[in-house]
Amino acid sequence: MPLEWAGSSPELLLAVDRTSREPLRAQLEHGLRAAIRTGRLRVGERLPSSREMARTLRLSRGLVQECYAQLQAEGYLVTRPGSATRVAAGNAQAPAAVRERAAPPRLVADFRAGVPDLGAFPVQDWIWATREAARAIPSSALDYGDPRGSAELREVLAGYLRRVRAAAADPEHLVVCNGYAQGLALALRVLAGTGVRTVAFEDPGSPAAVRAAAAAAGLHAVPVPVDEHGLDVTALEATGARAVVVTPAHQWPTGVVLAPERRLALAGWARRRDAVVVEDDYDSEFRYDREPVGALQGLAPDRVLAIGTVSKTLAPALRIGWVLCPPALTGALTGHKDLSDRGTATLDQLALARLIASGRFDRHLRRMRVRYAARRAALLDALAAHAPGLPVTGLAAGFHAVARLPAGVTEHDVVTAARLRRVGLYGVGPCRADPAAGPAQIVLGYGNVGERAVAEGIAAAGGLLAGRA
Amino acid sequence: MPLEWAGSSPELLLAVDRTSREPLRAQLEHGLRAAIRTGRLRVGERLPSSREMARTLRLSRGLVQECYAQLQAEGYLVTRPGSATRVAAGNAQAPAAVRERAAPPRLVADFRAGVPDLGAFPVQDWIWATREAARAIPSSALDYGDPRGSAELREVLAGYLRRVRAAAADPEHLVVCNGYAQGLALALRVLAGTGVRTVAFEDPGSPAAVRAAAAAAGLHAVPVPVDEHGLDVTALEATGARAVVVTPAHQWPTGVVLAPERRLALAGWARRRDAVVVEDDYDSEFRYDREPVGALQGLAPDRVLAIGTVSKTLAPALRIGWVLCPPALTGALTGHKDLSDRGTATLDQLALARLIASGRFDRHLRRMRVRYAARRAALLDALAAHAPGLPVTGLAAGFHAVARLPAGVTEHDVVTAARLRRVGLYGVGPCRADPAAGPAQIVLGYGNVGERAVAEGIAAAGGLLAGRA
Repeated sequence: MPLEWAGSSPELLLAVDRTSREPLRAQLEHGLRAAIRTGRLRVGERLPSSREMARTLRLSRGLVQECYAQLQAEGYLVTRPGSATRVAAGNAQAPAAVRERAAPPRLVADFRAGVPDLGAFPVQDWIWATREAARAIPSSALDYGDPRGSAELREVLAGYLRRVRAAAADPEHLVVCNGYAQGLALALRVLAGTGVRTVAFEDPGSPAAVRAAAAAAGLHAVPVPVDEHGLDVTALEATGARAVVVTPAHQWPTGVVLAPERRLALAGWARRRDAVVVEDDYDSEFRYDREPVGALQGLAPDRVLAIGTVSKTLAPALRIGWVLCPPALTGALTGHKDLSDRGTATLDQLALARLIASGRFDRHLRRMRVRYAARRAALLDALAAHAPGLPVTGLAAGFHAVARLPAGVTEHDVVTAARLRRVGLYGVGPCRADPAAGPAQIVLGYGNVGERAVAEGIAAAGGLLAGRA
Repeated sequence: MPLEWAGSSPELLLAVDRTSREPLRAQLEHGLRAAIRTGRLRVGERLPSSREMARTLRLSRGLVQECYAQLQAEGYLVTRPGSATRVAAGNAQAPAAVRERAAPPRLVADFRAGVPDLGAFPVQDWIWATREAARAIPSSALDYGDPRGSAELREVLAGYLRRVRAAAADPEHLVVCNGYAQGLALALRVLAGTGVRTVAFEDPGSPAAVRAAAAAAGLHAVPVPVDEHGLDVTALEATGARAVVVTPAHQWPTGVVLAPERRLALAGWARRRDAVVVEDDYDSEFRYDREPVGALQGLAPDRVLAIGTVSKTLAPALRIGWVLCPPALTGALTGHKDLSDRGTATLDQLALARLIASGRFDRHLRRMRVRYAARRAALLDALAAHAPGLPVTGLAAGFHAVARLPAGVTEHDVVTAARLRRVGLYGVGPCRADPAAGPAQIVLGYGNVGERAVAEGIAAAGGLLAGRA
């Protein structure tokens, strides 16, 4: 982005010392040369007009013009007719340009999970919602606000969570945060403050994220196995943990739904052990079977702390999420949020409130559900053609599936060979408490992969999944 | 905001069980009644059309229509001709409306410090910048990004900080965060990780904020006195602390500027003790004298971690700030930011980058400098008229001043009496490590107080400041 400072800069931080024996013009020249040499003024940057500079430093305009002329003669500055005076090329130290992360090689298809269709982000709706929110915002709302977030968004979100997730959502106990990661970090700090020492997590699940957040909160993290009915509550009981992080509606990464008897057992465990269930409700908006699964939070609102996010429904870059707290924990969680960053950006909150309340969010979800269903069908078709008989599970919701590799085939070999065919595949290994344990499986994320790319990617790499080299 | 769900909701979470002996219509009726009674569906909320509901649940449309008619007859639903079916009043449990914080009583003038002119927030410029950023954003940038923040904003910010603050700003070592509070929280966690055990803070200063952030990071916080030259570096040396939080350009709340010899002493202390200076550069954009004061960071980039924010230049509600790190600490700070929330909202960052790069930010600052200068002049005029001879200090920058109360007058008495005259005044007490220590002083924030309100407020309360009841 070319820098186009409008007219004068706020201040150039050039001082002249009237008590010095050095003439004022020399002082100004030295100051400007130093600013250019050290990169404080960069190539192409516009200088204040001689009038503005003279006013700022209380010098005569003629003196500033002479100084600019001198530096132009020396090659530090350039002036084009009818244009501002700018810093010339070649005098600054090598600028420290931002080193972009190395671009990943172009892939035929990248089946990385957890990414929604980024190209389908409703840009126009978001622009509309931001504009409406900014136009309507009272100036008092531009101050620091309630660290829980805007009352307007909490009201709208609570309605949404009651309606769509069967949550027992009271806006008083909703805290808006910057996405799931912050919700988890705050939740674990709150739990540490209540005397919890150990937090359990699903295995497979998100060991790295939970372990890091637990360590930051001073907690110990222990894995608990997941089977085809979801989290093993008996095994959880045996850990002695008084907190657990679960994905009941669509287990990450296996995709299994926590069975009804397990839900009841989990709520019962929390009550008996004075424990808290942290519910990660990450992608339940997208379901393809006909058995809607409400949030666990609705079953036991005093025992479940539910975290939601728009990272899967809209885009990760928005960094908006929420924590629905057991009432006893709302105060502490609000305190930690306040301490963390004094609340989430207000205009973003108000924009999301308008997006939901206007029905545009629902419309986007409906559109995306159709789109993901088509990609899911394309994935199954392609697998049937190129890896027939491959066991694929976890397809009830969201936008990823899990393929079980044939005996003797390792995740690493498949991932590496697929990369050579320019297909991004990902093993379940990093999702395991012990990456080497458990059967070899591949997670296939199709959220950000178009139908054609799904077909091409599986055509290229399907044989690897089937165990053919 | 009236909820206007567009057409059907994503899912109402009503399930019908085809294996049950209960007729489908009865199941649907029971489900809807329960949703209304428990508040999952609220008064006035729109139901999906019978067509949509029928499609979702794979029922006949006639069955859904019969069910709606039945619930209408029972008073659960209302239908107006040509309008959607909605939930009728009177059946839900009392909704948990968001309880707004009690509105403060209307004041003639509220001299609370630290708040910029909220009514002058450049709404149209922000809408423009957001729209431009959203239109131009590549979809890959809507994914999770570099936790340090957008390369575009870091590049533009680094230029701004070099130019306006004489900072040694390298975009590689800038981490965008959600305002000063997050910057401080992250910085203290990083310092705790490097073995720092004690952090010093200015007294008077922000004892509550530093103590809370220090406690969260596991650090001990100790006060160090401020005199008319700023922080007492000899006293700092004696604490044994290896970190200190300072406001060198415009000390909060006294308004003194850290003297040149103190700046050098502070940088020397940091080098000798392997210590880090956390520089809070909160309002230095607004200066009224002619002695620009560069950031301390420019003097000792390896030893100073500088935190900036747009809370004073634009609005606190934006929640955007940055940390300019000593290179040795950038990695750790980025890691803590990642763990905290995976990065600041990208569109907001890109909007700020455009605001700065287009020159609109500079223009806003110039406008605000004129406005604050006028308010400052109005304050001094009013004080000269209503509290002549009152010692007022700290006027070099920002938008607050400090008035010293006459002997025998307490902050509490003045604040209480002023409130009865509907003027918000604030004592320095809460800024002191020991609120009872030190001379009685009042902080007069004029950022969000118009010239007329300044005059009226001081006319009403000036006598109190002068020690007249």
